[in-house]
Amino acid sequence: MRLGVNYTPSQGWFHSWLDLDHAAVARDFAQIASLGLDHVRIFPLWPIVQPNRSLLRPRALREIREVVDLAGEAGLDVGVDAIQGHLSSFDFLPSWLATWHDRNMFTNPDVVGSLADYVREVAAAVADASNLLGVTVGNEVNQFAARPHPDPHEATPAQVTQWLDAMIGAARDGLGNVVPPAGVTHAMYDASWYDDRQPFLPEHAAELGDFTVTHSWVFNGSAQRHGGLGTGSVRHAEYLLRLSAAWHRDPARPLWLQEVGAPTNVVAVEDAPEFLERTVRNAATVPGLWGITWWCSHDVARSLADFPPLEYDLGLFTNDGETKPTGRRLAELAERRHELVPVTKPGPGIVVDDSDPTTYRAQLGPGGSVFEAWNATAEEEGVGPHIVLRSRIGESVDLAPRGIVELRAVAVAALEPIDVLHPAVTTV
Amino acid sequence: MRLGVNYTPSQGWFHSWLDLDHAAVARDFAQIASLGLDHVRIFPLWPIVQPNRSLLRPRALREIREVVDLAGEAGLDVGVDAIQGHLSSFDFLPSWLATWHDRNMFTNPDVVGSLADYVREVAAAVADASNLLGVTVGNEVNQFAARPHPDPHEATPAQVTQWLDAMIGAARDGLGNVVPPAGVTHAMYDASWYDDRQPFLPEHAAELGDFTVTHSWVFNGSAQRHGGLGTGSVRHAEYLLRLSAAWHRDPARPLWLQEVGAPTNVVAVEDAPEFLERTVRNAATVPGLWGITWWCSHDVARSLADFPPLEYDLGLFTNDGETKPTGRRLAELAERRHELVPVTKPGPGIVVDDSDPTTYRAQLGPGGSVFEAWNATAEEEGVGPHIVLRSRIGESVDLAPRGIVELRAVAVAALEPIDVLHPAVTTV
Repeated sequence: MRLGVNYTPSQGWFHSWLDLDHAAVARDFAQIASLGLDHVRIFPLWPIVQPNRSLLRPRALREIREVVDLAGEAGLDVGVDAIQGHLSSFDFLPSWLATWHDRNMFTNPDVVGSLADYVREVAAAVADASNLLGVTVGNEVNQFAARPHPDPHEATPAQVTQWLDAMIGAARDGLGNVVPPAGVTHAMYDASWYDDRQPFLPEHAAELGDFTVTHSWVFNGSAQRHGGLGTGSVRHAEYLLRLSAAWHRDPARPLWLQEVGAPTNVVAVEDAPEFLERTVRNAATVPGLWGITWWCSHDVARSLADFPPLEYDLGLFTNDGETKPTGRRLAELAERRHELVPVTKPGPGIVVDDSDPTTYRAQLGPGGSVFEAWNATAEEEGVGPHIVLRSRIGESVDLAPRGIVELRAVAVAALEPIDVLHPAVTTV
Repeated sequence: MRLGVNYTPSQGWFHSWLDLDHAAVARDFAQIASLGLDHVRIFPLWPIVQPNRSLLRPRALREIREVVDLAGEAGLDVGVDAIQGHLSSFDFLPSWLATWHDRNMFTNPDVVGSLADYVREVAAAVADASNLLGVTVGNEVNQFAARPHPDPHEATPAQVTQWLDAMIGAARDGLGNVVPPAGVTHAMYDASWYDDRQPFLPEHAAELGDFTVTHSWVFNGSAQRHGGLGTGSVRHAEYLLRLSAAWHRDPARPLWLQEVGAPTNVVAVEDAPEFLERTVRNAATVPGLWGITWWCSHDVARSLADFPPLEYDLGLFTNDGETKPTGRRLAELAERRHELVPVTKPGPGIVVDDSDPTTYRAQLGPGGSVFEAWNATAEEEGVGPHIVLRSRIGESVDLAPRGIVELRAVAVAALEPIDVLHPAVTTV
């Protein structure tokens, strides 16, 4: 199993793209490699690379490649995300998509065409790097597609399919004949599984791109309900992986836990290493898991303003490059990587009643009937149960290869509405 | 009288700050100097200099200074605008002020404090340049304060006063003991005079900062009503200068026509040189005029997308550095600069009835009673008449030093509403 980290530059956070300092990046990568991790995920900033819709800055593309090469020199493979887009509460939208030039990023043909150009060129810039792990369309771009985003670019699920096809196709075009180990993927935050407003659907995760990608953040209500080290928290990533796999028509489709972190607004700082270990060990039990990419490498410098408080403390390293307790714990796990193997124990399958496609997702999130039943069963069984869609039972899904020996229906709960949010932006 | 040009870099427009090419900038400045102009106005991009609220990039500040020095090497003085903000239909707002971090740029204390930091540091970076002309708070920042901006940051006139005081104070702090020839100024587009929704008022132009600054754009309805070479067009800048001077308590307060251009959506391309000459000659008749800064030096490259069509053709030079007919005409005027002198002929004063401060500004814009009466009188007299505020007559304003020998009241017209807009953003 691959074990890596999302790379948050120690100097100037992602604004450091404006002042790329090769020595500083090399130092960061050397620290990351010292933990025994095998890859990083990197994040170009879209408006810097494409400041005008028809201007893809050659130097910016070159610098993305230089960072990939610097990682290679440290022995790290690299996953490259194209559309940022959104990072740690900040949206990065180019001026040609805002205010007087406001257009829908998912449906406006000019915008979609130029976004495809951007994704294609980013992929092309890194295609022949020997340490390229893969290309991801963008970071949680589904954020932009619905409330609670303050200015949503609304799209239907069919439009999302078209858009993702265009972006994934552009990335493949850019890669040419190259097929990197993690292929071409796209990444959504968990509202796509938990929030019925989201037009990016679980199907989009399970069917488009080469891997099914999940991002697990327990500040979404899980930790608030279950406690920082409760089952609902330390199994949240596992749950999302098993849940997203329920849409797999191919039981062997790979899963990538591409973001998971220990947010200290809901996980006590002293519990963070334990949270990390349990999260990684639980996630590793899921069959098909290809890798885990922790969020994140380096703390955000306290000198930078306006981040939600938890974002300053997510690093495996301090801003000065000191290894934090979470960093040490992840290094220990990397050494014992052989222990991180899937558990294929036959067991019950929790049934998701997806008969009403417009309302069932609320049952999947924290406080929802499926979420809570799954966690209760995990506590009873000592291992997270399988998950099956009712619609797929109707389609005679083959349960045996998935190890499902019994189906358990879940009574639908009356739900208090929850918002599946990124953490509150306290400065607003 | 000073004669200069707003500097629009030939390569990459203002996005060229991301890839500052000293040789390219030096070449542009040499071309500008070859026309006999004496200054340029330059435009850092705010989100690049201050990508996080508490991060003012040292390199970006250094690069602003380098551009000022390059202008000096070409024999050009430089006015530096701080907050861009807004340029040619594009808003440049940092991510820390958008979507999840949306805050009011005029009233939120954190934002205002950090904006003041930005203005102060920009001013400090150029303070000791021997060719510094002055510091302007920002380009038409009043755009953001009201409709028709799609996402206005609403503020009251009193809040605008506080904000401008803070920004002008910050610029003075940054300059320290330096008092450049054009001092510290702020710049508004003409909605402040023509649109009753605007909380940036004529008083703000006439009382804050060292000069009264006007920006004259005849696509606001003037040229549509009067024709590209009609009185209302070729005297529009003069009108705005005389109008803004009506708020001067000191008749000697300097006026700066900081932006005026020949927009080819309403001025025929072949008429543009004539429009330029008449505009400059008419503006030059206004007593107290310190200088004119034409918009702009270089055409926007057609390879850049999404600009309103007219924006591609405003340069004195093509994108390749060829002098255009407007450039040649301005060079001829620069040679005959001695002819550009104020006309102090005594004459009538058109009276602006400002007794209802919430509605009178519509009478001042194209189609409004004052605008049309002033132009009719200018045609009769062969020189643009003076303008007087009714409220100031009540305060016994001294008419004699202004050359006003007779007062002419204007019947208020029933107005078709007009929008005082930047040109339609056709891509929306």
